[in-house]
Amino acid sequence: MKHIKVNDLLNGSNLLQEVTAKGWVRSFRNNQFIALNDGSTINNIQCVVDLDKFPADLLKKVTTGSAIAVKGTLVESQGAGQKFEIQVNNLEVLGESDPEKYPIQPKKHSLEFLRENAHLRVRTNAFGAIMRVRSVLSFAVHKYFQENGFYYVNTPIITGSDAEGAGEMFQVTSFPLDGSAPKNEDGTINYKEDFFGKQTNLTVSGQLEAETYAMALGQVYTFGPTFRAENSNTSRHLAEFWMIEPEVAFNDLDANMDLAEDFIKSVIKYTLEKCEDDLNFLDQRLKDEEKNKPQAERSEMSLIEKLNFVLENNFKRVSYTEAIDILKASKPNKNKKFQYLIDEWGADLQSEHERFLVEKHFKCPVILFDYPAKIKAFYMRLNEDGKTVRAMDILFPGIGEIVGGSQREERYDVLVEKMKALDISEEELWWYLDTRKFGSAVHSGFGLGFERLVLFVTGMTNIRDVIPFPRTPQNAEF
Amino acid sequence: MKHIKVNDLLNGSNLLQEVTAKGWVRSFRNNQFIALNDGSTINNIQCVVDLDKFPADLLKKVTTGSAIAVKGTLVESQGAGQKFEIQVNNLEVLGESDPEKYPIQPKKHSLEFLRENAHLRVRTNAFGAIMRVRSVLSFAVHKYFQENGFYYVNTPIITGSDAEGAGEMFQVTSFPLDGSAPKNEDGTINYKEDFFGKQTNLTVSGQLEAETYAMALGQVYTFGPTFRAENSNTSRHLAEFWMIEPEVAFNDLDANMDLAEDFIKSVIKYTLEKCEDDLNFLDQRLKDEEKNKPQAERSEMSLIEKLNFVLENNFKRVSYTEAIDILKASKPNKNKKFQYLIDEWGADLQSEHERFLVEKHFKCPVILFDYPAKIKAFYMRLNEDGKTVRAMDILFPGIGEIVGGSQREERYDVLVEKMKALDISEEELWWYLDTRKFGSAVHSGFGLGFERLVLFVTGMTNIRDVIPFPRTPQNAEF
Repeated sequence: MKHIKVNDLLNGSNLLQEVTAKGWVRSFRNNQFIALNDGSTINNIQCVVDLDKFPADLLKKVTTGSAIAVKGTLVESQGAGQKFEIQVNNLEVLGESDPEKYPIQPKKHSLEFLRENAHLRVRTNAFGAIMRVRSVLSFAVHKYFQENGFYYVNTPIITGSDAEGAGEMFQVTSFPLDGSAPKNEDGTINYKEDFFGKQTNLTVSGQLEAETYAMALGQVYTFGPTFRAENSNTSRHLAEFWMIEPEVAFNDLDANMDLAEDFIKSVIKYTLEKCEDDLNFLDQRLKDEEKNKPQAERSEMSLIEKLNFVLENNFKRVSYTEAIDILKASKPNKNKKFQYLIDEWGADLQSEHERFLVEKHFKCPVILFDYPAKIKAFYMRLNEDGKTVRAMDILFPGIGEIVGGSQREERYDVLVEKMKALDISEEELWWYLDTRKFGSAVHSGFGLGFERLVLFVTGMTNIRDVIPFPRTPQNAEF
Repeated sequence: MKHIKVNDLLNGSNLLQEVTAKGWVRSFRNNQFIALNDGSTINNIQCVVDLDKFPADLLKKVTTGSAIAVKGTLVESQGAGQKFEIQVNNLEVLGESDPEKYPIQPKKHSLEFLRENAHLRVRTNAFGAIMRVRSVLSFAVHKYFQENGFYYVNTPIITGSDAEGAGEMFQVTSFPLDGSAPKNEDGTINYKEDFFGKQTNLTVSGQLEAETYAMALGQVYTFGPTFRAENSNTSRHLAEFWMIEPEVAFNDLDANMDLAEDFIKSVIKYTLEKCEDDLNFLDQRLKDEEKNKPQAERSEMSLIEKLNFVLENNFKRVSYTEAIDILKASKPNKNKKFQYLIDEWGADLQSEHERFLVEKHFKCPVILFDYPAKIKAFYMRLNEDGKTVRAMDILFPGIGEIVGGSQREERYDVLVEKMKALDISEEELWWYLDTRKFGSAVHSGFGLGFERLVLFVTGMTNIRDVIPFPRTPQNAEF
């Protein structure tokens, strides 16, 4: 008899029928009530066993974490907390779980402890909920773009070019590291003999390749892993993370902001609809967490209120120049409470400034645009003022920067001049420059760090808790 | 005025209205008919310009590959080949394309030439079609799993473990390669000082990690990049490719075969429905290709017939032992036409044998199962006969192996014994073994090389032509 998923059992359509369920024991209360979970939902199905009907040594094996199969009748539950339960006629222990050794007990474990058991933490309510929400959010991303005429592009992971002009990349090689790799006459490594015939790294962004596709298919997006070899051990950074990068021909920066805002709202809306139980659990989890905080540090809104707030309000669009004026005149700047004081136009904004703007001043998601050219990447379109570029960052409460995007410099001459000034090799990016040589057009795009979105939607605070197996400095376990 | 996508213009809903279109010129015939494409569809919109209305030096810039914007009235076309066209009132050249230099001319280019211009090849009809089909197939994959209660899991790309026990991996490091990397006293590399504190590689499979998630969420799948550092320059291998790996708790091998067959049929069906124009083009392309072949080498079926054939017929399920008997008795074996003759049970099947079974003997997709344990991976479940494992491979005509899967060995003791025999470190895979220690259960899964599926659906023959920027030995351009 095929088993029925807990999620389907709980909707009651098999009421009074003989059913089979399989899953893992969350708890076994009074030698009578088994809370069975199979991952299809955060909710357990209660399986009621009659103590006298089963041998004691079988029941002894029904411990937290064990895998079991039960057969029985689905009935309406008399107890509180569940509508339906299974009156068990048949019980089989598929895989035992020694309670002395099983790390995940029915009690509160610290997030740190669970990170060390990343292969088991998804068996807890919180991580089951987080990972289901993550999955639904992923699908929402694909659904949004596919239904709006975008094509998914798999840009390369191993790359010979360095999109951002930044140096923080992991090297990929088939060479040994002990010094025996082939060398040129001048003593440098002879990469011609390495697997790809050149030095290669893990990608930091698929944007440049995506641009070449946007200039043919019109609207494209990437959704894949990207990498940073930055030695930053913070709650907001991962060495390996998933990024979403749409790129649209003929979109200017305004259209780009419209797209980003509509996209974020759509995927949150879809997830709110699809993950009600999981989000209610995470909402309550956050409320419980907050109880331990001093009143002043508690959020004004619950998790679900915060998500609805984002849906219902326009993101505030503010130019960099306006933002600098606000920051200059702000209390923490005047009282020297900022670590980095803002005294002039051109300063790079730090996390403390972004948080002030979003959490104290505007109290809503903020889109900053038209940044100084000097603090932004070479491919961003220069404004007529000659000193700002058509860049935008979206800042979220509690998260900081969640999106970074721009209108791209479509003018060949301006782009080449910029690359020269920054010492970026034209020879290496010949193919990127081709897009400006042949049928160039206005186009725009952005990058959204997927884990930051999952952080926001789940209300978690450490990015290591929203990706199954986090990669960070000194950690590549599992 | 916002521009309308070509795909939407061609459905005629804006008939007799003033419209704006933007895109790239495919051809400009008789100084009068511009074929404009914007990537939203393989079809062009014809834009009719009145020679006398526009300055000659403007029209001169309307060349293949240039980006233009046109305004005009959408009318029914008098000419053959299209239902609607734009009578152009306003023409703007957004980005020129020097016809002397633009590599993609309106003529047939070789696939080799186009590979060298992978940043521009998607501007051709064939590659536009392939990449749109690839995108729709990707979405079909997500849609199938999400609608069937699977959760998407992002397993790590950078890994400290070696899932298959195979050695062909790319190393990932922050160390220099010139011999100056920190060393231990015994002269070996001191990986403790490398970024992750251990030696790390690019993943060859997310299966083992996915198994840990299946044992909590029940039904999961991965869809991400995987890597092989194999120096094989063939039309079927890539160093970087995308793999789909579902993993299902409580599924045995039969259920696994059912899932694989249903999955493949579903995604092909969805793509046939969504990509009619692109697949018709690719169908015709293949017919044209075949005309150059001798009669005997031509396919019996067209591309679309082949896709429908897969939908309408059951995959033939054949045990390895039966397959060996068929091969032993086959003509090419008796006539010594096989390069590797089959003389006894236990032989590993080569591509020539798989092709014989699929293309000559059964003439349909074939699922081979119950392979000798010796030629399969350590994690596959041992049958009661003690010599075969619950493995399955799905073989497709023209493609060969498209799926490899198995029921996993769920018995802790048997698994440990197998690992010992193969010298696979228990210490390294402690977390994998935990799934057999705590709540173990029957479970199964498979891996499907996404590019091989795209090959099959598009009718292309070289795997480098179905991924945007292929990575192969000596090639990581773009």
